[in-house]
Amino acid sequence: MGHKAVVLGASGFAGTELLRLLAAHPGVDVAAAAASSFVGKSVSESYPSLAAYGDMKFVSVEEALEADSDIVFSSLPHTHSMKLFGEPEERKVVDIAGDFRLHDASLYPEWYGEPHRAPEALRNWVYGLTEYHRGEIIEANLVANPGCYPAAGILALGPLVAEGLIRTEFIHIDAKSGVSGAGRAGGEGFDFSAANENTRPYTVTGHKHIPEIEQELSRLSTKDLKVSFVPHLVPMTRGIVATCVGELSAKATTRDLIEGMNNHYSGEPFIKVLGEDSLPETKRLAGTNLAEVTARVDPRTNRAIAIAAIDNLGKGAAGQAVQNANLMLGYPETTALEQTGLVP
Amino acid sequence: MGHKAVVLGASGFAGTELLRLLAAHPGVDVAAAAASSFVGKSVSESYPSLAAYGDMKFVSVEEALEADSDIVFSSLPHTHSMKLFGEPEERKVVDIAGDFRLHDASLYPEWYGEPHRAPEALRNWVYGLTEYHRGEIIEANLVANPGCYPAAGILALGPLVAEGLIRTEFIHIDAKSGVSGAGRAGGEGFDFSAANENTRPYTVTGHKHIPEIEQELSRLSTKDLKVSFVPHLVPMTRGIVATCVGELSAKATTRDLIEGMNNHYSGEPFIKVLGEDSLPETKRLAGTNLAEVTARVDPRTNRAIAIAAIDNLGKGAAGQAVQNANLMLGYPETTALEQTGLVP
Amino acid sequence: MGHKAVVLGASGFAGTELLRLLAAHPGVDVAAAAASSFVGKSVSESYPSLAAYGDMKFVSVEEALEADSDIVFSSLPHTHSMKLFGEPEERKVVDIAGDFRLHDASLYPEWYGEPHRAPEALRNWVYGLTEYHRGEIIEANLVANPGCYPAAGILALGPLVAEGLIRTEFIHIDAKSGVSGAGRAGGEGFDFSAANENTRPYTVTGHKHIPEIEQELSRLSTKDLKVSFVPHLVPMTRGIVATCVGELSAKATTRDLIEGMNNHYSGEPFIKVLGEDSLPETKRLAGTNLAEVTARVDPRTNRAIAIAAIDNLGKGAAGQAVQNANLMLGYPETTALEQTGLVP
Amino acid sequence: MGHKAVVLGASGFAGTELLRLLAAHPGVDVAAAAASSFVGKSVSESYPSLAAYGDMKFVSVEEALEADSDIVFSSLPHTHSMKLFGEPEERKVVDIAGDFRLHDASLYPEWYGEPHRAPEALRNWVYGLTEYHRGEIIEANLVANPGCYPAAGILALGPLVAEGLIRTEFIHIDAKSGVSGAGRAGGEGFDFSAANENTRPYTVTGHKHIPEIEQELSRLSTKDLKVSFVPHLVPMTRGIVATCVGELSAKATTRDLIEGMNNHYSGEPFIKVLGEDSLPETKRLAGTNLAEVTARVDPRTNRAIAIAAIDNLGKGAAGQAVQNANLMLGYPETTALEQTGLVP
Repeated sequence: MGHKAVVLGASGFAGTELLRLLAAHPGVDVAAAAASSFVGKSVSESYPSLAAYGDMKFVSVEEALEADSDIVFSSLPHTHSMKLFGEPEERKVVDIAGDFRLHDASLYPEWYGEPHRAPEALRNWVYGLTEYHRGEIIEANLVANPGCYPAAGILALGPLVAEGLIRTEFIHIDAKSGVSGAGRAGGEGFDFSAANENTRPYTVTGHKHIPEIEQELSRLSTKDLKVSFVPHLVPMTRGIVATCVGELSAKATTRDLIEGMNNHYSGEPFIKVLGEDSLPETKRLAGTNLAEVTARVDPRTNRAIAIAAIDNLGKGAAGQAVQNANLMLGYPETTALEQTGLVP
Repeated sequence: MGHKAVVLGASGFAGTELLRLLAAHPGVDVAAAAASSFVGKSVSESYPSLAAYGDMKFVSVEEALEADSDIVFSSLPHTHSMKLFGEPEERKVVDIAGDFRLHDASLYPEWYGEPHRAPEALRNWVYGLTEYHRGEIIEANLVANPGCYPAAGILALGPLVAEGLIRTEFIHIDAKSGVSGAGRAGGEGFDFSAANENTRPYTVTGHKHIPEIEQELSRLSTKDLKVSFVPHLVPMTRGIVATCVGELSAKATTRDLIEGMNNHYSGEPFIKVLGEDSLPETKRLAGTNLAEVTARVDPRTNRAIAIAAIDNLGKGAAGQAVQNANLMLGYPETTALEQTGLVP
Repeated sequence: MGHKAVVLGASGFAGTELLRLLAAHPGVDVAAAAASSFVGKSVSESYPSLAAYGDMKFVSVEEALEADSDIVFSSLPHTHSMKLFGEPEERKVVDIAGDFRLHDASLYPEWYGEPHRAPEALRNWVYGLTEYHRGEIIEANLVANPGCYPAAGILALGPLVAEGLIRTEFIHIDAKSGVSGAGRAGGEGFDFSAANENTRPYTVTGHKHIPEIEQELSRLSTKDLKVSFVPHLVPMTRGIVATCVGELSAKATTRDLIEGMNNHYSGEPFIKVLGEDSLPETKRLAGTNLAEVTARVDPRTNRAIAIAAIDNLGKGAAGQAVQNANLMLGYPETTALEQTGLVP
Repeated sequence: MGHKAVVLGASGFAGTELLRLLAAHPGVDVAAAAASSFVGKSVSESYPSLAAYGDMKFVSVEEALEADSDIVFSSLPHTHSMKLFGEPEERKVVDIAGDFRLHDASLYPEWYGEPHRAPEALRNWVYGLTEYHRGEIIEANLVANPGCYPAAGILALGPLVAEGLIRTEFIHIDAKSGVSGAGRAGGEGFDFSAANENTRPYTVTGHKHIPEIEQELSRLSTKDLKVSFVPHLVPMTRGIVATCVGELSAKATTRDLIEGMNNHYSGEPFIKVLGEDSLPETKRLAGTNLAEVTARVDPRTNRAIAIAAIDNLGKGAAGQAVQNANLMLGYPETTALEQTGLVP
C-alpha cells in the first residue's frame, strides 16, 4: 500500500522509539520528523542507532505538518496537541500525550491544571488501548494513545472488572517504572548518580494518569469506580510493573482468575496471560509491544492481586501507537511489532 | 565496659554487615565468626573490606558457640536457631532468622512449612523492632530481630494503626526490595545479567513475613487484622520501600497523618518522619540504620498511603540487631550506628 | 531456499541469542536445540522471550545431532567441539567455542591447558571474523567463530596493522566487558549484589583470547607480533569496548587513521567507522551485529588509539555466527541481522 | 584542639562528600558551606543524608570566606580558586580543582585553555597526593589536591617508576570511572537512561589530568616522561580503576613488582597492596579513602601491568582532602577516614 507518516516530538524517548519501529515497517515511510530543539540536525547523527534514516534532518513542527502525509504521530508535551488538532483533521492522528484521552472535558482543570482548549473535539477521539477499543480504532481518524501507567493498570485490572470478579469499592494500583518514563531530559534526580541504587515513590496522590484509568475501568464495570494509584521510580531504563489489588466479589481461585483473563484476552496478539507458575517481569519485554499479565487470589484476605508488566516505551507508548496505526491504515495488527525481547 | 560477641552465619550478607558494624563498636569485640562453608579461611581475605579483622579465621558454629561470649548474633538459615536456642541460654542472643518471631507456635506449620521445634521457648523471646518493644528489649536475654519487610511495613503502618487513623479491614502492603535480600548465593535469577534491568513480583501471596506483620499490627490495634502483601525485586543492591494503603477511619489530612507519625516516633533516633515536601527513598539510607517514613491522604478515595524506606541489611537486619544489642548490653542505643548514607 | 539448523549449547547466553536471531531468519529453521541440563523442558517456557519456539523441547546433544540438518551452531564449552567435530563433517558447522580457532595445534597446551584432541582437523577450519575471511567463509564447511574480545580487538586494530599505520612492537589492548560474557551461570562474583557498582580486571595476563588476536593480527602484518591484553568486567549486561594503543609507524593524523579505517572497511555492512566527533559506545549496539570503530592520534606520544565497541553476544558471538551462516548457506549477509539498537 | 573549616562548592559531589566526612571529624567543625545555586537553602533539607548539619544554610562564597576559619576546602570549578587564592593566605587551603596542581605555569594554556591568573602563586602550593608529598604537606598552608585520575594513575605507577622497574618510554594508562566523576549536573549523556548499560571512552587524547600525571611521575623518575591516557565512563556511581602498562626495564617477576610496591608503600594507612591472588576492584572502596594497588608481569611481552582502584570521591577527591587537612592541622592522618566499604 504505502503510507507516509509524520512524527512530532521525534527526539524524545517515545519519538525515537517510534522512529525505530517505523524504520522496520514495510508499509509506512517517515516523511518528516519534528523536534524543535534539533531542527536542522541529522536524525542518524543525533541518534546513531537510527542509521536507517540516512541524512534526513529534524524539522520544525510547522514544517513537518506541511509535509504530505497520511498519519501524524504526536508525542509533543501536554497542551500542544489540543492546539494543533482541535479542528477536524483530514489526516489520521495518533496522539501520545494526554490531550484527548479523557472524554469529559471537565476533568482537565482538576488533573491537568487548566481547562481543555478544544472541548468540543474530545468526542471525536478514541481511547487507544487496542484490546478494549479495537473496533472503534479501525474506524477512527483520531486516536488518543493511553498513558504508560494506564496501559499497564487497565490491562491488569480490565478482565477482573469486566467479568465482575472484583468489587469496585477498593481498587489500588502500585506501579514501578523505569526512569525513561521521565523523558530524555529528566533533570535533577534522573542523573545516573542520583537514580542508580534508588527506589522512590512520587506523586503519591493525584497523578494525572488516574482519571484515564477510572474512565476505562468504569466503562468496563456497571458503575463508576475510583482507584488509588502510587507510582515509583526504580533503577532501570525501561519497563513498568503494575501490581493491583481489589476485593473479590465472590469466592474464587487463582485458577478462576487466570481462566477469566485467558478468556478475556483470547486471541490478543500482544497479551501473554501467565499461568500459576510464572509472574510478569520487565526485562524480557524491553523493546517489544508485549504485555504480560496474571492474577492471584489471596484467600486469607479475599483479595485478588492482578499484575501487568510492559515496556513503558513499547505497549506504554510507541509500540501501542504503531499497533493503532496498523489498524487505522489497514495493516495486519502486528506489523513491525514482532520483536523478541533481548534476554539477557 | 567491654563485651564479647559471637556471630553465626557470618559469611552471609547480614553476617558480614554485622561484622562491618561491630568492627566500629567501641564496646563489643567479635570473639568468633562462624561460617560453615568458610571454616579455616581468613575473614579479611575472604571479605577484604573487613580488613579490621586481621587474621581472624571463620570457624564452625559449634566452635563459635564454645567461645567465651556475652552475646550471640545468629543469622543462620531458618530452623537452625530453634535447634540451637530452644533451651534457656545464659548468654544473650539476637536471632536474625524467623525462628522466634511469632509468639503463636501454631503459625509455624502454615507459614514455615513445619512445626516449631521448641514451642515452649517462644514465650521467652521479644520481638526486636526496637521502636515498639524498647522496654522489653532492655530487659531481654533473647531477642528475635524482625524480618526486613516487616521492619519496613510496621514502621510505616504502626503509627496509623496504633493511633486508630486507619481502619483495620483493608490494609495492603506493596514492597520493593534490592536483590541483596535474596542473600549471598542468590542463585538463578540473581545473576547480574538476569536481575539488571528487571523488576518482578514474587511470592505474591503467602510470604512468610506476613504473620509477623499481622502479629505486631494487631497488637497495636484493638483487634486482629490481616494484610495482603506483595514483594518485588528491583535492580539495586540494598534498600526496601514499603508502600502501604488503608482506609481512613475518619476524615483526616496529610498533615494530620504526618503529625500523628511525628508524635508516635518522637525522640526515636533512627526514624525520620518526612513532611509534605519529601518522600522516602532508599539510596541515601544504604549502610545506615535509618528509616524514612511518611504518609499521605488520598481524599478522593478516603485512603491513607503510608511509606517507609530502609536498608534491608541495616534497619532490616544487622543495624537493627546492633541497636537491640546496644540496649541489651547497656550501651547508648546509637553506638556504632551513626553512619551517614553515601550520596551519591 | 530453506535450511535446517541445529543449535548445541542452546540454553547458554550465546545459545539463546542464536535462537532469538534464528527465529526471525526467513530461510533457516531450527530443527533441534540441545541443552544438557534442560532436556525435555520447553524452550518457550524456559525462556519466555523465545515464544516463537512454541512447544519445541530442548534435547540432548546426541539427539540433536541425529536430526536432519544443514548446519550446526555449537556453543558448547571448550573441548566439546573438538570431540564432536574432529572428523570430516558433511554438515556445515559454526563453532562458537575456541576449539578450532587457532591454526597451530601447539598453542593449545599453553593457552587452553591441554593438547588438542584433533590437531589434524584444524586445517579444515576457517577463522570466522567475516570482515577478514569472507571469501574463505563462503566456501567453508567449518567455521570457527571468533572470541568476543578478539572480535573487538581485531576490528579495532586490523586496519592499522594491515595498512602499516602502527608498529607491531608495542600493541596493548584494554577491554571492558559486560558480565554476560561470563555466561548464564556466572557463579560467585556475578550475582547482582557482587557485580553491580563494581569494575574489576581479571586474568590480567594470559587470557586465552590472546593467541587468536596475535594469529590474526600477525597474518595482517608482515611479521609475527605479540600483544598484551587486560580484560575487565563492568556493571552492565551486554557490550565490549576494546581500547587499543600502539606506536605510529610514521607521522599521521587522526584524519589519516579514520580515512584508513574507512577504506579498509568500505562496504562492510556491520562496521560503522566513526569520525572525529564521535566515539564508540556499547548501549546502542545491544542486540545488534554492529561494531563501532574509530581511531585517534595522540601526537604527544606518537601513538594511535584504536577503539571498537560491539555487543559481546552479537558481533562477539551469535550475530557473527549468523553472519557466517548466511554466507555459508547463500543468504544475503545481513539476513536476520538488521536489528536496530534499543535506545534508551 | 578544634578547628573551623569552610567548604566552597559544597553542593557538588566532592563538596557533599567533604561535608559527610567532616561531620564525623572530632576536631574540625564546618563553619560555613558555600554553594552559589543553593544560597539560603538548608544543607540538611537539600541533602537529607547530611542531617548532622541541622539548620545550617548554604551561603555565598563571599560570605563563607568571611567566616572565621582555619582551613578552606574549595571544590569550585576551574579558575575560581586561582582568582580567590592567588594572593598569600593566612588560612590553610586545600583546593580540589586543578588550579594549582601544575608547578609550571606555561602548561595552563595548553591543558586548561587559558593562561594562569596567578602564576607567581604556583610555587607556594604543594601537590597533595599524601603518599608522595607527606613531609611538605605537614608544613604546607596551600595544598592542591590531585585529580581523581592522577590519584589512581600515580598510585599504580609511582612505585614502578620510582624504583626504576619500568622504562619511561612507553607508559599508557586506561582508566574507567563511575559517572559521579562528571559532577552533580552531569547533563546530557549522564541521565540514567543514557548512562546505564553503557560503557564509553571520552577525551581519548588531551585530557587535562595528563600533565599532573607526567609532572609527578617525572619527578619520581630520573627523566621527563610522557604518558598516553584514555578515560572511560562505566555504568556505576563511584569508583575508578586505572590499568597501566609499561615496559619492564629489566627481567622481573610479578612477585618482584608486588614486593617493590609493598616496600614503596610500607606503613601507608590507605594503600592496600594486593598480592598475586587478588586484584583491585571498586565496589568495596566506595565511601572510603582507600586505594587498592597491585602489579603483574606479562612475560610474553616483557611488560608490567600496574592497577589501582579508588573511590573517585574518596581518595580521588574529598577523602584525600581530609587526609591532607589532618596533616596540615596536626590530627592523626586517618582521622574521620576509617570507614569500611559497604559490601554488598
